[in-house]
Amino acid sequence: MANWLDNLRAAAPGRITTSMAERTQHGRDAAHDEPQLPDAVAYPLTTEEVAAIVRVCAEYRQPIIPFGVGTSLERQVSAPLGGLSIDLSRMDRILEASAEDMDARVEAGVTRERLNAELRTQGVFFPVDPGANATLGGMTATRASGTNAVRYGTMRTNVMGLTVVTPRGEVIRTGGRARKSSAGYDLTGLYVGSEGTLGVITEIQLRLHPLPERFAAAVVPFPTLRTAIESVIAAFQLGIPVARIELLDETSVSAVNRHSGTAYAESPTLFIEFHGGPAGVDEQVAQFREIAAANGGGEFAWAERPEDRSRLWKARHEAFWAAKELRPGAGILTTDVCVPISRLADCILETRADLEQRGLLAPILGHVGDGNFHAMIFFDPTDGREATSAQDAHDALIRRALAMGGTCTGEHGIGAGKRQYLALEHGPAVDTMRQLKTAFDPDGIMNPGKMFL
Amino acid sequence: MANWLDNLRAAAPGRITTSMAERTQHGRDAAHDEPQLPDAVAYPLTTEEVAAIVRVCAEYRQPIIPFGVGTSLERQVSAPLGGLSIDLSRMDRILEASAEDMDARVEAGVTRERLNAELRTQGVFFPVDPGANATLGGMTATRASGTNAVRYGTMRTNVMGLTVVTPRGEVIRTGGRARKSSAGYDLTGLYVGSEGTLGVITEIQLRLHPLPERFAAAVVPFPTLRTAIESVIAAFQLGIPVARIELLDETSVSAVNRHSGTAYAESPTLFIEFHGGPAGVDEQVAQFREIAAANGGGEFAWAERPEDRSRLWKARHEAFWAAKELRPGAGILTTDVCVPISRLADCILETRADLEQRGLLAPILGHVGDGNFHAMIFFDPTDGREATSAQDAHDALIRRALAMGGTCTGEHGIGAGKRQYLALEHGPAVDTMRQLKTAFDPDGIMNPGKMFL
Repeated sequence: MANWLDNLRAAAPGRITTSMAERTQHGRDAAHDEPQLPDAVAYPLTTEEVAAIVRVCAEYRQPIIPFGVGTSLERQVSAPLGGLSIDLSRMDRILEASAEDMDARVEAGVTRERLNAELRTQGVFFPVDPGANATLGGMTATRASGTNAVRYGTMRTNVMGLTVVTPRGEVIRTGGRARKSSAGYDLTGLYVGSEGTLGVITEIQLRLHPLPERFAAAVVPFPTLRTAIESVIAAFQLGIPVARIELLDETSVSAVNRHSGTAYAESPTLFIEFHGGPAGVDEQVAQFREIAAANGGGEFAWAERPEDRSRLWKARHEAFWAAKELRPGAGILTTDVCVPISRLADCILETRADLEQRGLLAPILGHVGDGNFHAMIFFDPTDGREATSAQDAHDALIRRALAMGGTCTGEHGIGAGKRQYLALEHGPAVDTMRQLKTAFDPDGIMNPGKMFL
Repeated sequence: MANWLDNLRAAAPGRITTSMAERTQHGRDAAHDEPQLPDAVAYPLTTEEVAAIVRVCAEYRQPIIPFGVGTSLERQVSAPLGGLSIDLSRMDRILEASAEDMDARVEAGVTRERLNAELRTQGVFFPVDPGANATLGGMTATRASGTNAVRYGTMRTNVMGLTVVTPRGEVIRTGGRARKSSAGYDLTGLYVGSEGTLGVITEIQLRLHPLPERFAAAVVPFPTLRTAIESVIAAFQLGIPVARIELLDETSVSAVNRHSGTAYAESPTLFIEFHGGPAGVDEQVAQFREIAAANGGGEFAWAERPEDRSRLWKARHEAFWAAKELRPGAGILTTDVCVPISRLADCILETRADLEQRGLLAPILGHVGDGNFHAMIFFDPTDGREATSAQDAHDALIRRALAMGGTCTGEHGIGAGKRQYLALEHGPAVDTMRQLKTAFDPDGIMNPGKMFL
């Protein structure tokens, strides 16, 4: 290891640290307190430095763990076998941004909030919004999505190209600036969601979208989860291009009210937003009002002024932290299944029944337009029986979602936490994924212990 | 070969033919008359039959060439090394279609027109429209797009999952019915656009879209190509969700007029379509009228009744055949570059100047919203100098597009015809593509002579 570290320091002078504080910070994510420590942390400033660092790790067969700002949730950044955490947060330049072509090229360490702050004056924005102020590199690596995906797509659809350092330390560029291409294999799509197991993403070409002329957001309560979801299905069938449509169950709404000082009716609730020209938005609103009324929806609480919209979505985005206050100090298992929307009500209701039967507290909220929801299952980490019960409920939920044609993870990724479910979901296709992993990374140095068991 | 054929016949009784007529038909595509013949043609009815057939070919290391209806343009279906053409057109069942979940699962041989005919009564449609009535398997394999892609995306964004027979004859299922997933590598995206070089696609899970409440289509002439393109850019910057926006140059309009009996002004022209609710469409139309007026646009010829819209788009779709009549019997080189839209006017105008200087006739039309256009370069196949000049103009066009950040092929694929440009476009990333090809198909039996030199 001494030789390896010496060579790393020679390859990237001044960029390598072995401080315990930094190793600790880089060994854990937003959902797990106990770190798994890398042996060292690198802070490269350029793609060439990343390549030089990777070549040294390849020579010594040392694990490489790409790191953004650590907001992932499935231990994607932990270092179970030690090695080097490559922190890309100092690669934070916006290299190009074009309002005419609606695209931007950024280094992997640029955060989405920073990008949007810089774009604002140009009348364009980058829509993918997972809540946390993640880096665009991290969002690419986990195929992130969030509240806007129902209208604008996920990272899968909004990444046009990449610069990647391969596990051998070569630099390749995938994709390009054309809005579509049929030239060769879609390597871009392959690295999106690869969770650091195939290479280190250092630059991202992003698709931008015009800032809508008008926004209208509202909060609407429904008598039941099912009627709320039926309204969403009806809206899609009518072709209403809803920009966001989020579901909170009564427990989540109650937590939000306590945390954010709001006074929403404590029943199943949709947070919804429309984008477009003034007449188009009015029409969408009128159509959705009719649908909601037909499904027993209550009073709409509108937010049209920017500050009111910000408050509304801040309340939604803080729902996770709000819910945490329901049982301070408890452990939380965050689930992430996604099912065809026709099965969503069944999936949520069967899950709630199971959780209630087990006596587990678990507020539910989700990106209902995509069929994706999160149950936050609370448990006392010192109570082995309850912790096991929470795990069992999660396992049952994933099997339920898969039986409905869904996925074990809509947006958080496999990481270390869901590896046992990859084969359950994809069957023999996992062998094909492994073939690919072995071809690209024969020594298994890229983020080992993630994705595959 | 006798053993191979005997074993094929045993694996799929009644499905194998060696008739010269069928071998000839399967050895050529819509753009090339001279066939490269497979040794035999198979007509499987099920995924299991495909798998059995592939296993026999793998045992004898015989080439496998997947075939839909042969509407591809870059010799993707030709058999330069012989082997077996697998014709999937008899696998034509629509397995599932859900208006609630907006998805459908089809066998690879279903054509897009047939699918849309079946879906019509359910209020949903599959938008990707390359013009030809291709099979959905073929469209998936070439990452097809066409006139609707500007609003609804290409096959890349509209394919959710696949059933694939691997080069070893195993059956895998990729993706699923969830509208998004972060579970493992995006194998679906990898097979989309793989042009038969990684496996045989036998089933496709497709994303559907609601039929818009209102359509409005129009034809608008502009004084110059540049003002037409400036109008498109302005429309996107305003966020007008244009459903189709197609550019025809004056030569193409003139050909269309002669072929379809229309009387459009013979100047650079946009064919445009808006989808949405009635008020939303009115608003889009009003906004686009203003933009067109500011750019010198002429009279709008509207088509709102279904039969008028059909006539308008039929005229656009037949532009290729219309243009062919400009010089009957001539050879045609169909180009397919795609560039960032801010460079599109430059790219087209520089290309026209080059073609004029060479004395080549070449009507231009394109999916201008995506930055993708086709120049149909005519040449006399018996005139070596002119044929070379056409090739040189095509080569210059591709280099021009790549220098502008574009791609050599927006939607037709690499096939046999553009292999020399793959490395020019993607550089060292082509080595990564080859690594992948070798890992999946070590014996190189899947569609040899395509994609890679």
